[in-house]
Amino acid sequence: MLEGFFNPTSIAVIGASKTPGKIGFELLKNIVEGGYKGKVYPVNPKEKEILSLKCYKNIKEIPDVIDLTIIIVPAKIVPSVIKDCGEKGVKNVIIISAGFSEVGNIELEKLVKEIAKEYDIRIIGPNCAGLINTWSDLYASFEIRCKKGGISLISQSGAFGGAFITRANYENLGISKFVSYGNAMDINETHFLNFLAEDKTTKVIGIYLETTKNGRELVKNGLKASKEKPVVILKSGRTSAGKRAALSHTGALAGDDRIYTAAFRKSGFIRADSFEDFIDALYVLEEGTIPKNENVFIVTNSGGPGILAVDECERRGLNVPESEDKLKEKLAFLPPICSRKNPIDLVADADYERYYKTLITLAKYPQVGGVIVICVPPVFINPESIAKAVIDAKIEYERNQKSLVACFMSGDVVKKSIEMLKKNKIPVFESPERAARAMEKLILRGKILRRIKN
Amino acid sequence: MLEGFFNPTSIAVIGASKTPGKIGFELLKNIVEGGYKGKVYPVNPKEKEILSLKCYKNIKEIPDVIDLTIIIVPAKIVPSVIKDCGEKGVKNVIIISAGFSEVGNIELEKLVKEIAKEYDIRIIGPNCAGLINTWSDLYASFEIRCKKGGISLISQSGAFGGAFITRANYENLGISKFVSYGNAMDINETHFLNFLAEDKTTKVIGIYLETTKNGRELVKNGLKASKEKPVVILKSGRTSAGKRAALSHTGALAGDDRIYTAAFRKSGFIRADSFEDFIDALYVLEEGTIPKNENVFIVTNSGGPGILAVDECERRGLNVPESEDKLKEKLAFLPPICSRKNPIDLVADADYERYYKTLITLAKYPQVGGVIVICVPPVFINPESIAKAVIDAKIEYERNQKSLVACFMSGDVVKKSIEMLKKNKIPVFESPERAARAMEKLILRGKILRRIKN
Repeated sequence: MLEGFFNPTSIAVIGASKTPGKIGFELLKNIVEGGYKGKVYPVNPKEKEILSLKCYKNIKEIPDVIDLTIIIVPAKIVPSVIKDCGEKGVKNVIIISAGFSEVGNIELEKLVKEIAKEYDIRIIGPNCAGLINTWSDLYASFEIRCKKGGISLISQSGAFGGAFITRANYENLGISKFVSYGNAMDINETHFLNFLAEDKTTKVIGIYLETTKNGRELVKNGLKASKEKPVVILKSGRTSAGKRAALSHTGALAGDDRIYTAAFRKSGFIRADSFEDFIDALYVLEEGTIPKNENVFIVTNSGGPGILAVDECERRGLNVPESEDKLKEKLAFLPPICSRKNPIDLVADADYERYYKTLITLAKYPQVGGVIVICVPPVFINPESIAKAVIDAKIEYERNQKSLVACFMSGDVVKKSIEMLKKNKIPVFESPERAARAMEKLILRGKILRRIKN
Repeated sequence: MLEGFFNPTSIAVIGASKTPGKIGFELLKNIVEGGYKGKVYPVNPKEKEILSLKCYKNIKEIPDVIDLTIIIVPAKIVPSVIKDCGEKGVKNVIIISAGFSEVGNIELEKLVKEIAKEYDIRIIGPNCAGLINTWSDLYASFEIRCKKGGISLISQSGAFGGAFITRANYENLGISKFVSYGNAMDINETHFLNFLAEDKTTKVIGIYLETTKNGRELVKNGLKASKEKPVVILKSGRTSAGKRAALSHTGALAGDDRIYTAAFRKSGFIRADSFEDFIDALYVLEEGTIPKNENVFIVTNSGGPGILAVDECERRGLNVPESEDKLKEKLAFLPPICSRKNPIDLVADADYERYYKTLITLAKYPQVGGVIVICVPPVFINPESIAKAVIDAKIEYERNQKSLVACFMSGDVVKKSIEMLKKNKIPVFESPERAARAMEKLILRGKILRRIKN
């Protein structure tokens, strides 16, 4: 059903504009400059040509079959435009326009729905930011363009999606698909989940959800998706300030969130705490290896950050066991000043050799599920040499199915090291707590898989 | 007592080295290149000159009074070097060298302590990274140099301090003083607290603590400091595995976290959750206004991030009340599509005017304690114009003693806006949750002040 939205052969943009800054211009420009290979037809009765493309007065005048239509006209004209689409034989429509149920215009939204039903039209929106499919160079959205990759985002909020994409660009993360679905008049998050579960370029799915009317399908399709790939959810309105009237009845509101929590658990979703946690989770789940066991080991050249990582691991319910005696024996090559307990403290002068040998020893040792490797480079150590040790050790982690997450602290001193690690697909974070929370997500995913696959 | 450490008239560096990368070289280089105005004397029996400075075989040969001595020789030689210092009449010594109680050499540390006592020498360290006083251009540390500012950091861990400073540089935050005190053989965190409480260039104090043996003084001196300025503490080793890790790092038991929690409360400390929370707290407490009341209002052009901010506020126990009717009346200038409840949603096309008028209205309205202003710039809005609205409204917030914290999302799109806001001393964060946690710190500080000043 969604193929025509994400891989259309031709697109009409109704409400295309010549004015930079207007959504009707920016969206069309995004499609054209994004490199979309199919035909593009702007529709605007007042213009003859926009961005060197012939402009049509009405969609019905276009001498071609239209696969996808994007509507950016004032809300009150949308019903008549949808009717035109129906008469033209269009089946896939994105309504970007706002001004429907979200501002109380419920009747208008109902009317659009009725007309769409009559013509068998499926609708994304209204009140949304459109969609992106980087793998077919389709930017049917006014959001910023982004790098190809394996993360797909389903976002109820358009602005959240925009903030997400700009942050992903900033962190050099790659996107597969993005869709903002706004009022979800017809197609909703559960349909996208279904589609992305089977989408080959999507390695991990993120959902930003404010509310849903489709609890049962969310669990059903969510579980199906979770069996294929990790699904991370950021649910806002947990404390429900949106439901002002009920604010004094916090018990009832907490109950709401408990229902969501139970549903997300059934769906096999990983729940993020915050915007940052959400992005970090998607990043680590795309890059990282899911561990076979849940024991976290910490390797550090700096005691303090090592302890902060342990604290966060334990707060998150992860195991940070003491090293078995046999493991300590295998780490006997470490200078006596080092600690072979967990955290394994390589002390400040740890170099490539010390890091590499320690990481390899842990990769091969059965007690170890995953390793958080921390580097706070002192002035006399080149952090890139430590990054190289981590990169060189990576293959042994993959071979033994163990997780490897890095924390390089901080600022410009480790900028190049972080680039090196990212290039080599080793998840890296700038604080021990973020690294610990990322490790938590890999372990959680392992737990979920064991639970839902049975 | 600490004046001679932070504002010495002359410095000797025992164990100075000619080899780049060695601490004995990097530390001396930091002092020289940092612009220290007093006399500097390297001591190393094997060298004649280091960094164009005459090198002495023994501190006793230096034909000058030595105010501060920094020792970077192997642990086992430290006792004889301290004796030399004593005979020279030195009273202030920093021992950078590691290899004492933290690795079980308790007797050696005891011996150093006895000799120091005999000669009335006060000691910072051993096993530390030294200290910095940007306001006298003193970089008596091998850590990276930093910008002048109002944040002072007391850190038990040297590496933590290094990570902190590089991050502060990256975030363009200014430092007043930094001291890492390692094993705290003599001078400990409570002495530094006392000193910084009265230090004029220190606007806010941060403490990174793994463990303390000085509970009573910490509460006493902490309370004294908290009455003068905000004190933020990051205590690691909160969990059982964290405690085990702390034991091998600094050789002391971390103790029950409940006891620490009670002590920090008595001290008027603000406790941070993580490395990021710690930095954000220091940043916001240096720049931000402490509000008169605890009601948080959220102004946003994007619903989703607004709700995320409310969620985090409520999770942190902050009040996010509904706008009073009279406030809604004062906001009647907003287009009907906007929400005048709290969050106040200005919707995507909000421009300078709409932001500015809303912010000013809130600044003047008694119900408001603080405002989190969120901007997720859509493609047709210039984020710098919104930053300007926030900057222009700031004075009204100061005048009415209300807090103003910004969240601009995200990545490169808002880079310039963030620079503008930082330059104008408006605390700004890239996620709604971080902004909410920052607001929490301002409100907490207000609560603490009301509590401890009585």
